[in-house]
Amino acid sequence: MDYQAVLDDIAATIQSDLGTAGSVADYIPALSRVDPFQFGMALRTRDGLEAWAGDALTPFSIQSISKVFSLTIAMRLAGERLWERIGREPSGNPFNSLMQLEREQGIPRNPFINAGAIVVADYLVTLDDDPESAILNYISGLCDEPLEIDEEVAASEAATGFRNIALANFIKSYGKLDNDVSTVLDVYFRQCAVSMNCVQLARAVNYLCRDGIHPLRDDRIISSRQARRINALMLTCGTYDTAGEFAFRIGVPCKSGVGGGIVAVIPDSLSMCVWSPALDAGHNSLPGQKALEMFTSRTGLSVF
Amino acid sequence: MDYQAVLDDIAATIQSDLGTAGSVADYIPALSRVDPFQFGMALRTRDGLEAWAGDALTPFSIQSISKVFSLTIAMRLAGERLWERIGREPSGNPFNSLMQLEREQGIPRNPFINAGAIVVADYLVTLDDDPESAILNYISGLCDEPLEIDEEVAASEAATGFRNIALANFIKSYGKLDNDVSTVLDVYFRQCAVSMNCVQLARAVNYLCRDGIHPLRDDRIISSRQARRINALMLTCGTYDTAGEFAFRIGVPCKSGVGGGIVAVIPDSLSMCVWSPALDAGHNSLPGQKALEMFTSRTGLSVF
Amino acid sequence: MDYQAVLDDIAATIQSDLGTAGSVADYIPALSRVDPFQFGMALRTRDGLEAWAGDALTPFSIQSISKVFSLTIAMRLAGERLWERIGREPSGNPFNSLMQLEREQGIPRNPFINAGAIVVADYLVTLDDDPESAILNYISGLCDEPLEIDEEVAASEAATGFRNIALANFIKSYGKLDNDVSTVLDVYFRQCAVSMNCVQLARAVNYLCRDGIHPLRDDRIISSRQARRINALMLTCGTYDTAGEFAFRIGVPCKSGVGGGIVAVIPDSLSMCVWSPALDAGHNSLPGQKALEMFTSRTGLSVF
Amino acid sequence: MDYQAVLDDIAATIQSDLGTAGSVADYIPALSRVDPFQFGMALRTRDGLEAWAGDALTPFSIQSISKVFSLTIAMRLAGERLWERIGREPSGNPFNSLMQLEREQGIPRNPFINAGAIVVADYLVTLDDDPESAILNYISGLCDEPLEIDEEVAASEAATGFRNIALANFIKSYGKLDNDVSTVLDVYFRQCAVSMNCVQLARAVNYLCRDGIHPLRDDRIISSRQARRINALMLTCGTYDTAGEFAFRIGVPCKSGVGGGIVAVIPDSLSMCVWSPALDAGHNSLPGQKALEMFTSRTGLSVF
Repeated sequence: MDYQAVLDDIAATIQSDLGTAGSVADYIPALSRVDPFQFGMALRTRDGLEAWAGDALTPFSIQSISKVFSLTIAMRLAGERLWERIGREPSGNPFNSLMQLEREQGIPRNPFINAGAIVVADYLVTLDDDPESAILNYISGLCDEPLEIDEEVAASEAATGFRNIALANFIKSYGKLDNDVSTVLDVYFRQCAVSMNCVQLARAVNYLCRDGIHPLRDDRIISSRQARRINALMLTCGTYDTAGEFAFRIGVPCKSGVGGGIVAVIPDSLSMCVWSPALDAGHNSLPGQKALEMFTSRTGLSVF
Repeated sequence: MDYQAVLDDIAATIQSDLGTAGSVADYIPALSRVDPFQFGMALRTRDGLEAWAGDALTPFSIQSISKVFSLTIAMRLAGERLWERIGREPSGNPFNSLMQLEREQGIPRNPFINAGAIVVADYLVTLDDDPESAILNYISGLCDEPLEIDEEVAASEAATGFRNIALANFIKSYGKLDNDVSTVLDVYFRQCAVSMNCVQLARAVNYLCRDGIHPLRDDRIISSRQARRINALMLTCGTYDTAGEFAFRIGVPCKSGVGGGIVAVIPDSLSMCVWSPALDAGHNSLPGQKALEMFTSRTGLSVF
Repeated sequence: MDYQAVLDDIAATIQSDLGTAGSVADYIPALSRVDPFQFGMALRTRDGLEAWAGDALTPFSIQSISKVFSLTIAMRLAGERLWERIGREPSGNPFNSLMQLEREQGIPRNPFINAGAIVVADYLVTLDDDPESAILNYISGLCDEPLEIDEEVAASEAATGFRNIALANFIKSYGKLDNDVSTVLDVYFRQCAVSMNCVQLARAVNYLCRDGIHPLRDDRIISSRQARRINALMLTCGTYDTAGEFAFRIGVPCKSGVGGGIVAVIPDSLSMCVWSPALDAGHNSLPGQKALEMFTSRTGLSVF
Repeated sequence: MDYQAVLDDIAATIQSDLGTAGSVADYIPALSRVDPFQFGMALRTRDGLEAWAGDALTPFSIQSISKVFSLTIAMRLAGERLWERIGREPSGNPFNSLMQLEREQGIPRNPFINAGAIVVADYLVTLDDDPESAILNYISGLCDEPLEIDEEVAASEAATGFRNIALANFIKSYGKLDNDVSTVLDVYFRQCAVSMNCVQLARAVNYLCRDGIHPLRDDRIISSRQARRINALMLTCGTYDTAGEFAFRIGVPCKSGVGGGIVAVIPDSLSMCVWSPALDAGHNSLPGQKALEMFTSRTGLSVF
């Protein structure tokens, strides 16, 4: 299939309609200043073919997409122990809800809601001497390019992240966080502030469509079963409280971030990333969803 | 692949371990009397090959598996209008919870929780003169065999279904049910009381792995897109509050019932049904889950 | 104190401002047709002095005020056993919430929310051959006047009371209702449809300011301790989810109904009733609250 | 009435039964070490008569009883503005629940749950240069004795108060806290760590039975209306999720603390304090409740 032509075509359609709906995340200044008239899209097949269109080389804040990488590292380091403190069910509630955490005694429903990603960060702090570098080096190795943390974003997250501070302290109150709240949150806030572009992200998650094998080399990142399980988690829990809608309309595992990025994995086939800053009420990029829906519709690629 | 050998092997393993864990549904006498030392398994490929093992010809109460069929009929009759009164998100709560229904103003989260299936039944009552026969004839046509409703089960459901009566009246209080509560519930209770065996069920859901084409003939039941969407709903919402766990461990769309049956669909490949009456705390057949996990593990079949 | 002058004065003030805020209950036609430009107020002292002003002789639907009477009868018949199935805590939620009932396994928080009053009705059905007549005769005896049930209101409540039907079935699903749902609800719907005027109601609750002694005779209705406990329940739970606000601003035990009536008890001093049909968002008569606030403020009567 | 005889009698009864039920608060070491075989009781009438029995001169940690004093100061300083960020309804949930705070957008239900007291502390930080001294001096002035903060308790609260840190950050995330979380919590943790004995506390809350007049002098602390309103809040919200039960059984405004103290006010009559460290599941002193119930039962004092 001529993926480049498909991407060019989708990009042209999406770009002609940018700015008409949705709104850029505004909870920190660095994100609110992002120009909504941007759209990028990139993919990498299982065999290493790459294609991209639009603003696919413009870096953006990966935000919650980072949870895929931190989860992968934690699964490598902690194995099955990880699941003693994190569930694997969709949350059925807005992404930062404390209610369910209370009902379930400090066990977050899954690793992709904020509470769950904070517990993942706690494992990383316990199991790695320098978890922040571990995450950055890991992602950098996957896409074979140097990466940076946007210090302004990281500082703003830390200064305004009262909800996340509340979540972490709440989990701590149940004795389900081993390290200092501030140490754990520092790792979490900084992983969310990594800057990447669509091409880098499509490459970085490519191991998820290759049964866990590194995109560029032949060494194994995680087992085939682990890769399939991360895909399953992305499909059922990857897009906040709209995972059912994504599965219904788009039909492939996705993980989104409030920076406007969405990564998608079509197992055994390809990985991709779309980016456009305007979000819908569910905190997912509105043009990004449309682009993904067009892509799976035109290519017939779907897990169902 | 020699599916018959795989099924025989799995059946032998599961049967040697029956009765050690889980418990038969006991909310009505007709279900509680079922012998837990039974296990059946059947599949039908996209191309019509069938295989089965164990008690695959013993009829059991399909219960919530019927929701797949009523949803399919409603999607044919109502089209997109259906989704005005039913969501498409995992519930994140026990399967008969009223809380979420209250929070969301009488709109059930998805068509596979009881509340959602009751709304589906309301559509059927509105759009078909004889919805009960419509459902029965529809399923019967799919597996090309005569089917019956277990009248004792149907009567018991009606006599003890206070929670479902509560749900239906609660939805009605929001003006989201067009017909009489008792008429709607009658359809719902009776569809749950249909008796089928594994071979029949594997055949009856086969259209979901054939892009919506009838298992035995070449006429289309629903569009390819609709079939994929039902599969997506089964994966994210098909097994009560354990959909994430099913996706994580089994990795294919499933729909379970408290009678101990579970149907599974591997798109473009095959459909299957396992049955064994002992349930876990999540109301899903415990031996059935184990059998499905063994099957997807050995065959490497998974949507991820 | 010249109570008649106080009432005349308050009535004049309230009447000059009627119709400017709040809205009449509109869930059934018979209530929605009530003219909002009506206001009545009546009191009866511990010693039998009566005073009234405005439309105090106009009958209205007592609705939830009936819960005071059914509770009193149930306390007489069932004694402490009553509290095995009903709590004594404020609900902290809208008055017909199912959420808390689910969380607390079918035990309503108190006898003044709908769920609790339905359980009270279940006790009456169990303990009295003709509970409907028992309630009517009981209230009639307290105010020494014949009373009637408004059949149109009763029929409408039954025909549209889906939320209450849901509540009753939900409680029944926990095994916490001994009789048929329809029998219990019939008693409940009919007790709510009793018509009374302010003078009758002020008299009928007078035993609550007389340590449990009948208003007109010297026989004891309930023990002094029971009377004080009903007053305590009225103060903490008598006005749906605004009991704290009533205690804070008005400072005496009250029980309101969606017909616009509010009864109030000042222990050892007097009982009273105000009525005006326009309700606030909390389902309590808006002019009624204002009148009560003026009354306690002017007379200095308060339990605090 | 010979209050001294009543207290002596109650103390003898309670002391003979100490240590048989309930358990000392154990969330911080300083509290868990307290000997449960202690009981004290003291009262002061409106006219200044004092009586006490048992360990009424032994200091204990006042904990949540401090919320009465901080609320009084805040009502003086902030007036009606205080209620823009705090409700006046019973919580209907365990005392540190985050759920209701989420549902109500960061507005705590009342000033006596932890969330509400944290908002009160925020007002004090805004309106007073040295809020910690203000609280200590204020209470000290009321009982005319020097008071101290137990530094070990204060340090432990701060080091283990993850739930309260979560609450404060959660409120902050809604923009409903004006000052730094740590500054506000410091005031809150330290006010809870004040040590007092029963005689001091009975005296310190005496203004609430004197229409707001200082217990020892004739100057006014707060208006008569404000005093009555604090009493109303104590009755509906003063004992966590058991306010209804307290009103039902004891029938007077109370405020309890996890140190085992309970203050009670009988308007226009007297104020009192009981103390015994063993708590029930509702976090209220078990012997303390029994003593209060005996007192109101024997003296006939009740607001109902």
